[in-house]
Amino acid sequence: MDEFELIRRFFNRAPPSGLELGIGDDAALLRAGRNAAGEAESLVVTTDMLVAGRHFVTDVDPESLGHKCLAVNLSDLAAMGARPEAFTLALALPGIDEGWLEAFARGMFALADRYGCELAGGDTTRGPLTISITALGRVPNGAALRRDHAEPGDDLWVSGALGAASYATRERLAGRGAELPAAACTRLDRPEPRIALGLALRHLARAAIDLSDGLVGDLGHICERSRVGAELRWPDIPVAGELAALAEAERIELALAGGDDYELLFSAAAENRGAIAALGAHGTLELTRIGTIVPGAGVTVVDARGRPVPLARAGFNHFA
Amino acid sequence: MDEFELIRRFFNRAPPSGLELGIGDDAALLRAGRNAAGEAESLVVTTDMLVAGRHFVTDVDPESLGHKCLAVNLSDLAAMGARPEAFTLALALPGIDEGWLEAFARGMFALADRYGCELAGGDTTRGPLTISITALGRVPNGAALRRDHAEPGDDLWVSGALGAASYATRERLAGRGAELPAAACTRLDRPEPRIALGLALRHLARAAIDLSDGLVGDLGHICERSRVGAELRWPDIPVAGELAALAEAERIELALAGGDDYELLFSAAAENRGAIAALGAHGTLELTRIGTIVPGAGVTVVDARGRPVPLARAGFNHFA
Repeated sequence: MDEFELIRRFFNRAPPSGLELGIGDDAALLRAGRNAAGEAESLVVTTDMLVAGRHFVTDVDPESLGHKCLAVNLSDLAAMGARPEAFTLALALPGIDEGWLEAFARGMFALADRYGCELAGGDTTRGPLTISITALGRVPNGAALRRDHAEPGDDLWVSGALGAASYATRERLAGRGAELPAAACTRLDRPEPRIALGLALRHLARAAIDLSDGLVGDLGHICERSRVGAELRWPDIPVAGELAALAEAERIELALAGGDDYELLFSAAAENRGAIAALGAHGTLELTRIGTIVPGAGVTVVDARGRPVPLARAGFNHFA
Repeated sequence: MDEFELIRRFFNRAPPSGLELGIGDDAALLRAGRNAAGEAESLVVTTDMLVAGRHFVTDVDPESLGHKCLAVNLSDLAAMGARPEAFTLALALPGIDEGWLEAFARGMFALADRYGCELAGGDTTRGPLTISITALGRVPNGAALRRDHAEPGDDLWVSGALGAASYATRERLAGRGAELPAAACTRLDRPEPRIALGLALRHLARAAIDLSDGLVGDLGHICERSRVGAELRWPDIPVAGELAALAEAERIELALAGGDDYELLFSAAAENRGAIAALGAHGTLELTRIGTIVPGAGVTVVDARGRPVPLARAGFNHFA
């Protein structure tokens, strides 16, 4: 049983009536009433839990950890097109290490301040090092970027370049962390949530997800929720420069199934192609058209001649 | 350093501008806009984390655990006078035990359904058994029961009877769990959040807190936040029937400092005394006047002759 099946089986019930959107997307949507300008809004809510020894090594740099545990939640808000507003922090610590806590808080608050997201409350306890953050944001009613809105014919786009974070993980696990380029470490340790892009895509994209488990696996979630299929063109996929010297099979593995990229993958009508390309051209974040939503189900990846590209694994599973 | 000092030192910053109420109460308050009836509301947000071996024994009954981990969060909402709306669940599991998960979900959803509180999302991962829930509720603007609104001269009230949960903990730790009365086990394992009472107190109480760490310690939080003192009358305190056979020193210890009661402690103007007594008389939940808010600082407990009652400890500290 993988984590998705676990959630479906034990925690996913009949569509709840009071929520605009429940389990199964990057975040849930709750009715938030009308703001001061009289506009109806939705509250966007997402939770992540990071466990020492599973999501990070026990001797991780605490400032990076403080950044990352908030970043993965803000990335979920970005994937919904939401503006971050507040977060709560639940923290189990094996003991009190003041230097560690100062660095952790510094990393977390530096990111929070950059996006105007305030710590609203939390809980601390003694226990195996575990961090759970719940982030809250807002989006105008009907403007959220959901996983279930992709349509056949949509272009598929991705921000940034893929594979550097999983390459850094692989090299560290192999004991070659010291030789890693700094940029690859930054991609793994300090992912930048694509908040501005999410806001800009509110009226341009149809479906979106953030890339946490790997491109093919995460695209599979869009396909499943939207009841469509997808075709990715391997030659069009922006692969991180750090992977340039690797064999193609390794580049395919890391860029398509590696995870931890925290870029946005989104679908958009072809008529928005120019506007999205312009967003990419004017921003600092590359936007690349990498495939198409098709009728049917499942994700296929094709090479320059349209032949299927074989994949070793589809995405990260926390219970594998 | 205890957990309160830890939070103050590393996570409590200048009063945030975007929040109505930040760290330091049972829950945070965020502006929620106007509801369909045009009334301005606040969103109420609270988080708790429960760790195996610290907050519960590893072989705990999973159905009770599912109940309790949501109940402690709903109790925080009750202490704010909020109506529960939704919650998120982050769950680290050492492995997948289907029977355990079914029972856990059953306990959690039975409580959630009773209060119309829907699971909006979550995260599951492998790790040491840890449960973090964030609960969201709503309250009309200005109606929240905050810790910082107590005033000298206020009556102090408490719901229910105190000490049964900590008595059950003590007996289990001493290996006498099998001889415990069922009612004491229920108080520890399945506390009932005082949601209806919190709603009824919106316009009657001034300050409120839920009793998780012990009466004297939790009252200390109201005193600190309201910059007042408090005097409790030991003979007036409703002690659970399960403690009747114990020596007075033990009854004092368990009822005043035991924790885990999840009753509401609140202050109210003397002019509301009749209305609050009527609430208690007409409901199934006893409400007892146990003391007074006074000028100054700190909590004192006096006996029938007004002499101080000595206390061994003030409240539970997760880092002690």
